[in-house]
Amino acid sequence: MRKIRIGIVGYGNLGRGVEAAISQNPDMELVGVFTRREPSSIHIHTEGVTVFHVNEAVNFKGEIDVMILCGGSATDLPEQVPYFAQWFHTIDSFDTHAKIPEFFDVVDQAAQENGRVSIISVGWDPGLFSLNRLLGESVLPAGSTYTFWGDGLSQGHSDAVRRINGVKHAVQYTLPVKEAVERVRNGENPELSTREKHARECWVVLEDGADQTAIETEIKEMPNYFAEYDTTVHFISEEELKQQHAGMPHGGFVIRSGESGDGDKQILEFSLKLESNPMFTSSVLVAYARAAYKLAGMGVKGAKTVFDIPFGLLSPKSPAELRKELL
Amino acid sequence: MRKIRIGIVGYGNLGRGVEAAISQNPDMELVGVFTRREPSSIHIHTEGVTVFHVNEAVNFKGEIDVMILCGGSATDLPEQVPYFAQWFHTIDSFDTHAKIPEFFDVVDQAAQENGRVSIISVGWDPGLFSLNRLLGESVLPAGSTYTFWGDGLSQGHSDAVRRINGVKHAVQYTLPVKEAVERVRNGENPELSTREKHARECWVVLEDGADQTAIETEIKEMPNYFAEYDTTVHFISEEELKQQHAGMPHGGFVIRSGESGDGDKQILEFSLKLESNPMFTSSVLVAYARAAYKLAGMGVKGAKTVFDIPFGLLSPKSPAELRKELL
Repeated sequence: MRKIRIGIVGYGNLGRGVEAAISQNPDMELVGVFTRREPSSIHIHTEGVTVFHVNEAVNFKGEIDVMILCGGSATDLPEQVPYFAQWFHTIDSFDTHAKIPEFFDVVDQAAQENGRVSIISVGWDPGLFSLNRLLGESVLPAGSTYTFWGDGLSQGHSDAVRRINGVKHAVQYTLPVKEAVERVRNGENPELSTREKHARECWVVLEDGADQTAIETEIKEMPNYFAEYDTTVHFISEEELKQQHAGMPHGGFVIRSGESGDGDKQILEFSLKLESNPMFTSSVLVAYARAAYKLAGMGVKGAKTVFDIPFGLLSPKSPAELRKELL
Repeated sequence: MRKIRIGIVGYGNLGRGVEAAISQNPDMELVGVFTRREPSSIHIHTEGVTVFHVNEAVNFKGEIDVMILCGGSATDLPEQVPYFAQWFHTIDSFDTHAKIPEFFDVVDQAAQENGRVSIISVGWDPGLFSLNRLLGESVLPAGSTYTFWGDGLSQGHSDAVRRINGVKHAVQYTLPVKEAVERVRNGENPELSTREKHARECWVVLEDGADQTAIETEIKEMPNYFAEYDTTVHFISEEELKQQHAGMPHGGFVIRSGESGDGDKQILEFSLKLESNPMFTSSVLVAYARAAYKLAGMGVKGAKTVFDIPFGLLSPKSPAELRKELL
């Protein structure tokens, strides 16, 4: 059987992760990496694969099955997904929750018109966490769903700290509050405020001569980012930051705590503990690329989400093998 | 929109659970309960619903959409599922893992010939646990999958203890070994023997004059059931057993511990903590009944497993609502 031919658009953390994930899946091959930067400035790992300018992608119609779009949700994906859906099945990790319905409609139109399958908002949240929220409320209609994130590096919050005058470098971790998680796991179904669910921890490298006390106060009082949370600020050396905070760990829990029809307490929990957030997200994108390819082979077209994809399509194994080995 | 019309075949723990679960799902209604026993001997909870002999089910063709089969896997389901698939979509919880492929083929033929949808082997294992084994290996092809069961009451092992001469009553709990679970959660990917994964705990009420020491030895040395495990035996009074061991709790964990393409450790875990095993299984059956009904509405027919069902079909909500609220 011929391999599923994959293209990557955008070669940041996510694009590199997709490249690495393809190498773990023998039924797939990487055909090309596409970038808006100068292609010769980009060095990829896969031997024999070329980096092209993004404008050349159209020439790969019929040579790439699924294009995995690794750009950002703010401006890249809303433009790129409908564009690439003209010629390829697509996978993206669009994660602006509020704009998903609108994004879906635009992508659906492009994919329908061109007979492509586009699976949008793939990853772990949105993605695997969304699936577990849906499963929980479908199986236990009477109950509460809780999502906790962390321990994990938050890019947006790290950036917010870095923008403060006098901060040379910083990382921010989101931490689920252990007591809250335990109460939920015990089936107490608590009502939890923002502060009760998550805490924030910052590791900050100061510029020479910066006012440590003033910066700590500025972080802790920053509205929307930190003021609503219990925030701890640690000041460290640049060297320490590089050594101990270079990774991009993340994870979290989705917990459905409900009662079955007779009043018995029943608790479902899905959790992730990730050493690398982008590498894991990429692994999910690649599994869903296989599903897009298989769906297209069944004559399906249009935009889809993880809610529309049977898990069987994520696997290289046949339905009969799956029933025998995994059911 | 008219409700999904459900029938129940078999009114044991599972059948009662299905009845209770239907009452939590306003888009469904229970049309009838079917039994091999004398119908008048069975008292159900739902007002206005009648108990019929199982031979009368054929008369409900066109009046029941989905028949949920609540019999046992040893002899009931292999006979009943292909029979009922002549007239109704069906859901069952067939759980003899080794015979699933054969069962699937027989049911598929009946369902295909009669234009029905039959989702087989639904529940939590096989079922939700199977889904997470599949998800784990699809997203992280390099890694190991572990399934732990418990703390939970095992019907088969309880029965084995009860068959011993001198035992008046007994319950047996399967317990995951905490150290093993922790090692797996820490990403150690250990190789674990049967004894290292699970322990067994028995609570036994003796007949008057029974030999306690001999019975304890007989339990602990019973091949296949207890000899391969660390087994603890407690002797208690009948009253104590009734008060403290009347429930049917269960649960467990599916853990996928793998590495993404660059070598980062990534861990997925799905866990259940159930106060009532049959009540939860019933809740899962009912959610999949909805999926069978929706699939049939799309013109699908034949046997299916949980691997073939997109989670979106489990919910009463529309795809657009799901994208907006849960993605």
